[in-house]
Amino acid sequence: MEESELHQELPFFKNLQEYLREFVYGGIDGAVTTFAVVAGAVGANLDPMVIIILGFANLFADGLSMSIGAYLSSKSEKENYQKHKNIEYWEVDNIPKKEREEIVAIYREKGFKGELLQEVVNVIVSDRDRWVNEMMKDELNMIEEVKSPFKIGLATLISFIAVGFIPLTVYMWDYFYEANFDVFLWTCLLTGVAFIFVGALKSWVNQTGIWQSVIETLALGVIAAMVAYFVGDILEALLLK
Amino acid sequence: MEESELHQELPFFKNLQEYLREFVYGGIDGAVTTFAVVAGAVGANLDPMVIIILGFANLFADGLSMSIGAYLSSKSEKENYQKHKNIEYWEVDNIPKKEREEIVAIYREKGFKGELLQEVVNVIVSDRDRWVNEMMKDELNMIEEVKSPFKIGLATLISFIAVGFIPLTVYMWDYFYEANFDVFLWTCLLTGVAFIFVGALKSWVNQTGIWQSVIETLALGVIAAMVAYFVGDILEALLLK
Repeated sequence: MEESELHQELPFFKNLQEYLREFVYGGIDGAVTTFAVVAGAVGANLDPMVIIILGFANLFADGLSMSIGAYLSSKSEKENYQKHKNIEYWEVDNIPKKEREEIVAIYREKGFKGELLQEVVNVIVSDRDRWVNEMMKDELNMIEEVKSPFKIGLATLISFIAVGFIPLTVYMWDYFYEANFDVFLWTCLLTGVAFIFVGALKSWVNQTGIWQSVIETLALGVIAAMVAYFVGDILEALLLK
Repeated sequence: MEESELHQELPFFKNLQEYLREFVYGGIDGAVTTFAVVAGAVGANLDPMVIIILGFANLFADGLSMSIGAYLSSKSEKENYQKHKNIEYWEVDNIPKKEREEIVAIYREKGFKGELLQEVVNVIVSDRDRWVNEMMKDELNMIEEVKSPFKIGLATLISFIAVGFIPLTVYMWDYFYEANFDVFLWTCLLTGVAFIFVGALKSWVNQTGIWQSVIETLALGVIAAMVAYFVGDILEALLLK
C-alpha cells in the first residue's frame, strides 16, 4: 500500500498514527474534565474567574495525573509480560517434562492426536524461544504490547491539555477583551465541535462507523456537562440559600 | 488451588476480583479529580462552598463520563474483534487457498517444514473454527476480551464515585458541623490514606511489588494536587489583583 510506505518514511506521522488512540482518549478526557468545571460553575452561578482558575488547575493536574497513570499502567503491563516470560523460561529449563505436557495439551486442543501430535510437539520444544512463545500466547493468552509507555504518556498529556483547553478559550477571551456575546453558549458550541472532531478520529482508531462514533462522543460530553450543570445548580440552591 | 474454588462458588467475589482493575483505576481517577478541585480552590483562596459545589459537579460528571467511556471503549473493542473474526470466516470460505497459505506461513515461522508442515496445516484447516482461531491469534495478534463492557463501566462508576468522594468528606463535615481543625490538612491525610489503600490493591492487579505500587499511586495524587494548588495560587495572584 502506498500510504504505509509513506508512513515508514516519515517516523513522526507513523508515531502519530500509532499513538492516535492515546490522542483520542486523552483529548476526550481533557475536554470532559474542563467542560464539567465550566458547566458546574455556570450552573451554580459562580464567578467566571472561578471557571478560569479551577478550569486550568484541573486541566494541568488531571492532564498530568492521567498521562503519568497511562505511562505507569503501560509500563507495568510490559513488566508483567516480561515477568511471566521469565517464569516460562525458568519452567522450560527446570521442569521441561511438565511444560512439554502443556504443549501436548495445547495441540491436542487444536485437534492433533497420535503420532502427529508427538511430532508437532517435538518441533515446538526443539527451540527454547519458540516453546516459550507458544506458552505465552496459548497457555497465558498474553500478547506483548509494543508501544512505548513514555510515548503513551506523552501523547495523552499533549492531547489532554490541547483539547481540554478548548472549553476555557472563550472565558479567556472574555477576560481579556470582554466579550459581548453569550460566553457559555459559545463555549458549548466550540466544545461540541471539538467532541465531533475527536469522535471522528475515534472512529478511525476503533474501526467503527463515523456517525456512531461522533454521536457517542458528543453524547458523552453533553451528558457530563448536563450532570455538572445540574449538580452545580442544585447544590447552589441547597447550600447558598 | 483452594482460593479459586471458593471464587467459583461465590460469583460476587469472582466478579469483584475480575473487575478489580476497573475498581482500582476508577478509584484513582476519582480521587485525583476531586482532590485537584479541592487543592486548586484552596491554592486560589476560594470559598469552601466552591469546593463542595464543583467537587460534586466534577465527581458525578467525570465519574459518569469515565464509566460510559470505559463501557464504549470495551464494547467497540469486542465489536472490532468480532468484525475481524467475521472477515476471517468469509476469507476461509471464499479464498481458502490464500488463507491456507497464511497458515503455512505461520507454521513455517514456528519451525515446521516439508511434509510435516503440510500435515500440520491439514489438521488446522480441517476445522473452520480452529482455522479462524489460528488466524485471529497468530496472524492478527488479537485475543478476545472476555469481560462484560457493562460491568467494566459499572465497576468504574462505583469506584470513581466512592473513592472520589473521600477528598470531599471533610469539607462536608465542616459544612454541617463546623470543624475546629485544619480542614485542608485532614483532607490531604484522608486522601493520602485512600491513595495508599488503592495503591496496595493496584499491586495485586498488576502483580507488582506492593511498595512500588503504593509509592507510585501516592506520588501521582501528590503531584496532581500540588499542580492544582500552585496553578490555583498563581492564577489567583495574576487574575484577582
